[in-house]
Amino acid sequence: MEERRKEFAKNILRMLNEKKNEEVKEIISNLHPIDFAEIVDFIPLGQLIEIFKILKDDEKIAELLTELGSDLQTDVMDALGKEKASDILEEMDTDEAVDVLSEMTPQESRELLDLMPKEEAAGIEELLKYEENTAGSIMNNEFVAIPEDLIAGDAINKIRELSPEAEMIYYVYIVDKKERLIGVLSLRDLILAKPSVKISEIMEEDVVSVFDDDDQEEAARKISDYDFLALPVINKKMVLLGIITVDDIIDVLEEEVTEDIHKMVGSSEIYEDKLIKANSFTRMKSRLPWLFVCMFGEIISGTVIKYHSDILQSVVALAFFIPIIMAMGGNVGAQSSTITVRALATGQLKLDELWRNIWTEAKVGLLIGCISGITIGVVALLWQNSYLLGLAIGLSLCVTMITAATVGTLLPLIFTKINIDPAIATGPFITTTVDVGSLLIYFSLGSFLFSYFSG
Amino acid sequence: MEERRKEFAKNILRMLNEKKNEEVKEIISNLHPIDFAEIVDFIPLGQLIEIFKILKDDEKIAELLTELGSDLQTDVMDALGKEKASDILEEMDTDEAVDVLSEMTPQESRELLDLMPKEEAAGIEELLKYEENTAGSIMNNEFVAIPEDLIAGDAINKIRELSPEAEMIYYVYIVDKKERLIGVLSLRDLILAKPSVKISEIMEEDVVSVFDDDDQEEAARKISDYDFLALPVINKKMVLLGIITVDDIIDVLEEEVTEDIHKMVGSSEIYEDKLIKANSFTRMKSRLPWLFVCMFGEIISGTVIKYHSDILQSVVALAFFIPIIMAMGGNVGAQSSTITVRALATGQLKLDELWRNIWTEAKVGLLIGCISGITIGVVALLWQNSYLLGLAIGLSLCVTMITAATVGTLLPLIFTKINIDPAIATGPFITTTVDVGSLLIYFSLGSFLFSYFSG
Repeated sequence: MEERRKEFAKNILRMLNEKKNEEVKEIISNLHPIDFAEIVDFIPLGQLIEIFKILKDDEKIAELLTELGSDLQTDVMDALGKEKASDILEEMDTDEAVDVLSEMTPQESRELLDLMPKEEAAGIEELLKYEENTAGSIMNNEFVAIPEDLIAGDAINKIRELSPEAEMIYYVYIVDKKERLIGVLSLRDLILAKPSVKISEIMEEDVVSVFDDDDQEEAARKISDYDFLALPVINKKMVLLGIITVDDIIDVLEEEVTEDIHKMVGSSEIYEDKLIKANSFTRMKSRLPWLFVCMFGEIISGTVIKYHSDILQSVVALAFFIPIIMAMGGNVGAQSSTITVRALATGQLKLDELWRNIWTEAKVGLLIGCISGITIGVVALLWQNSYLLGLAIGLSLCVTMITAATVGTLLPLIFTKINIDPAIATGPFITTTVDVGSLLIYFSLGSFLFSYFSG
Repeated sequence: MEERRKEFAKNILRMLNEKKNEEVKEIISNLHPIDFAEIVDFIPLGQLIEIFKILKDDEKIAELLTELGSDLQTDVMDALGKEKASDILEEMDTDEAVDVLSEMTPQESRELLDLMPKEEAAGIEELLKYEENTAGSIMNNEFVAIPEDLIAGDAINKIRELSPEAEMIYYVYIVDKKERLIGVLSLRDLILAKPSVKISEIMEEDVVSVFDDDDQEEAARKISDYDFLALPVINKKMVLLGIITVDDIIDVLEEEVTEDIHKMVGSSEIYEDKLIKANSFTRMKSRLPWLFVCMFGEIISGTVIKYHSDILQSVVALAFFIPIIMAMGGNVGAQSSTITVRALATGQLKLDELWRNIWTEAKVGLLIGCISGITIGVVALLWQNSYLLGLAIGLSLCVTMITAATVGTLLPLIFTKINIDPAIATGPFITTTVDVGSLLIYFSLGSFLFSYFSG
């Protein structure tokens, strides 16, 4: 794949070099925007701009630009000049135009909007107001809305008329005189209906919608649960403002998952979803806070060891098993908490199953604890030739596993109950908590066994 | 929400008790299947079966059942009897019917299929053949296909005719005499076209599709990249077999993410995506392998400590900082590997940016290492009143952070290159690797400093 794309890009560059502009135009025009985006990595910026100049067609340029990264978008827009840039923006879906504009300085964005027809500009400005992560920020206002007293035949004609501008014509929304959302109808139902029937008679009145200031995750959940292709967005007065389409939701879901996964290892999102594009300083800032929590937590672990330094000095072999106790406890804790957090996020874990789940995990801890405790106990016996050491490490590991699995399951649930994002109850948080606990178990048990039973 | 659902379920149960069957039927019939699924948790099985018996309407029952868990589906089907169960299956989308049947024993499934009309049964059997996780296993065969020589007006009539059975009518696929896929057209284009124009003149010939034995993830990637509502599935002879719709893809993406997240903490999927529903024995089996890898890795860590037990016995305070070195190394390693694995999975990290990313992460390690190294060095100095100890722990922590960040980034990339799923290069694997390395650094440096500079 990689090679084929490179080869393809090379061909384009050769043609550009030979001034075969018509051929380039022909090829690029027939490319799907996604396929174009995949070869762009191999085309230097200068030539890329040249390609856009050759293309001329604003609509095609808008389509292609939509799939590029925001840096490239801005570079190309700049190179093409303001007049052209505003023409291209006009051709984009409003939600895409908003994305492009929000990456620019307020002044640049203002200039481009001023060059656009008033009505188009107003539509985009309406969307620019919304804060990130709200439903309003990902909606577009290119939907099909019709009045309730239309008949089905006329409604289809109306759709034909609006179709070139609308992003999604497969759902038709019905509004009253005050533009309030009162019904929905699929194009499928409309096609099947008798042309003379009134819309209000066949429309579905029970419309599922979101408010413009709802979280985008709420919209994502509804589209994915109800298997919708689009979801209407309304304001508090029930006025229909826009729609969110299923393809945008797939992006939202990916973003949210990335955010969750990063949180699970104690890395907060500063430039959301783009941590991998951030520089080292930003990455450091997003990760340091939890690492410091971990560091000071582990000082407590150190204090536990210090408290038992007498026994450690007389039985130095106890130290050899610190890594096993810590690593096994941390890993089992991370497993239990991560599995629980993910099940909560996907809704697979219902609230009434919580206790059963904690119980199941405790049993998992017991099973894993017995198997690994006996194994490591035997290893310790053979390695250090000491029954007491074998007993101390084996028993501690078993108790640690049970504790880690139970605490790992319990903490995310408690966090959920008190309205803290459970994802932060994984990673550094859980491993540190478990480390302190497991060393406490190990050294207390070790001290006890060696002081009472050793010759 | 929770309370409202409970209340609603209670009302239904009360009405059932009072034999107000018509009212129950009325209410449930008007419920969206998703809303029904949310109250089902509060309705005992006996009453649930009663509700389905009251409903009678096979199509409605099919819709509602589709959203329930597979255990409930089987229980309800059993209670309604084979005749009824096969009628209900007939009303389901084929991909849903396949899901239900694949949860049953081969014999039960056979009996239900035998009760269905031949053609319907054959369509479902065709899909039952496919292995899990293939594109074929999630497709349905209720699509709209038309011959190329139709004119647009007739095509719309054909869609009207097929619509009641087709799951997705917004994409129309064009096939030749041998049922090979040769084009695609959206209902939107069809509505806008002149009724007399030939389909072959307006269809898009460059159809993006997947093979039936491709991985379902391939299909998910294509639908999400191209923003499609559905994707055609073909066999090696280019014959159109079915379509995969965008709503099924959202489920696939969620499943795959869950699988990845579980892998990241060293838990393989045995009953995929349903680990949270599994019993403790299954959960244990899915997690034990990596924990054993971890345990034997940490025996190496133990050996490192044993090798330096002389210095540990004379400077027992070195042991107090083992938890910090291990925990910080493990967490930074987990962060770097997890962020890299996620960026690879979402395609945000392109292959040509790999080296730059490793370099960036090494710098992150350096920054975090310097800050936390100096902090812990000072803490060690104040706590244990030893410059040498402060230097040993501070310097080791710094080197450990750099190593952990670099190795954490490098390993997933190497795994990708040699075609191993990079997700297993996170969790237990990376933390164990880093633990051995960091203890080696810490004790070597500690030994060196104390033997040359102390006393």
